[in-house]
Amino acid sequence: MEIKVLKDILSANNQIAAQNRQLLASKRIMAINLMSSPGSGKTTLILRTFEKLKDKARMAVIEGDVSSSIDAEKLGRAGVTAIQINTGGGCHLDASMVNSALLNLPLDDIDILFIENVGNLICPGGFDLGEYLKVVILSTPEGDDKPHKYPLLFTQANALVINKTDLLPHVSFDLAAFTRTFQSFNQRAALFTVSAFTGEGIEEWGKWVMDNLRKLRTANKSK
Amino acid sequence: MEIKVLKDILSANNQIAAQNRQLLASKRIMAINLMSSPGSGKTTLILRTFEKLKDKARMAVIEGDVSSSIDAEKLGRAGVTAIQINTGGGCHLDASMVNSALLNLPLDDIDILFIENVGNLICPGGFDLGEYLKVVILSTPEGDDKPHKYPLLFTQANALVINKTDLLPHVSFDLAAFTRTFQSFNQRAALFTVSAFTGEGIEEWGKWVMDNLRKLRTANKSK
Repeated sequence: MEIKVLKDILSANNQIAAQNRQLLASKRIMAINLMSSPGSGKTTLILRTFEKLKDKARMAVIEGDVSSSIDAEKLGRAGVTAIQINTGGGCHLDASMVNSALLNLPLDDIDILFIENVGNLICPGGFDLGEYLKVVILSTPEGDDKPHKYPLLFTQANALVINKTDLLPHVSFDLAAFTRTFQSFNQRAALFTVSAFTGEGIEEWGKWVMDNLRKLRTANKSK
Repeated sequence: MEIKVLKDILSANNQIAAQNRQLLASKRIMAINLMSSPGSGKTTLILRTFEKLKDKARMAVIEGDVSSSIDAEKLGRAGVTAIQINTGGGCHLDASMVNSALLNLPLDDIDILFIENVGNLICPGGFDLGEYLKVVILSTPEGDDKPHKYPLLFTQANALVINKTDLLPHVSFDLAAFTRTFQSFNQRAALFTVSAFTGEGIEEWGKWVMDNLRKLRTANKSK
């Protein structure tokens, strides 16, 4: 009985996610579902990406948080179009929340849409939002053992961004050991080491984002 | 209909939590439900607390993780009695998981029981485990805005431990601003600043733990 309810919720979510995906494709928007623990640097990475790519692509952000609009305000002050979703206790965004946000965004003026999920390494893994790419951020102070403890998100990622490399001299994070562990869960994901704080590594990450936008648009055109 | 299901789950959880609380009280055990984001330092704080208090109190740990037994093994190597619970995808421990663990622990030989919840700043807030105290850890690299974004856990805490103070010179965490924010959500909680890595601040924290153990035992005796 309980399993039936869960199935219904997930299949309803998947239907709306498919609608989101169709809407985004029709507008030629690349949506990136950005997932991490609280405080790993999702918003700072978005801000750095905006600085790096603003002359090449138009960007907008859907901000997911249990409560507050701190991050959307921070993005707004930097000139990024951002819309805040408060889940009011929920530990992840779902496709219908994203659908509501899409209806309130200027979709004709967006190339790249970041969907900043609720800070959580577990719940977001169960919910397709209609995104084109899933990106997971892990910051070095969180430790190099996280894929073992939270396998689902790491397995799903199209790219993994190791953030806060500026703190590497001060924390016990073994980059080589982490890479081996991560790749035992996920061989296909692109791997980036960045400091969103200092800007280190943002060049490579921005290039990957733009490459994927071109890929999506070429695929779109050939249909 | 959905709300009814949720109610049933929560009321079943509360019944088992009450049983856990009664069992723990009958054995004069103080249980501390330790909650934080992934990688905030729950296990390291437990290890430091064990080092500090091992001559004064007998300690055991229930380890909650989605998957793996890394932390229980780490504790075991240090000589701490630990039992691992894997939630297999669940984003928090619940009272029945803790109940199963209690039945497998040598309850007559334990004074302080740490229940290390799944790394998550959201889900654990909804589930009473039968603990005596709730303690939340926030590490400085996570940022000083977290109470606004994840109010429930911060509001519930009997104590808040700010961990990784050794990283303060390298991260943008305003301790005074954080304290003001936190106290606007929760005035009664004890507040500790520690580095579980260097041992800074562990003395004060250990004193608070022992004070609470004495309080529980005096209250127990006067019944």
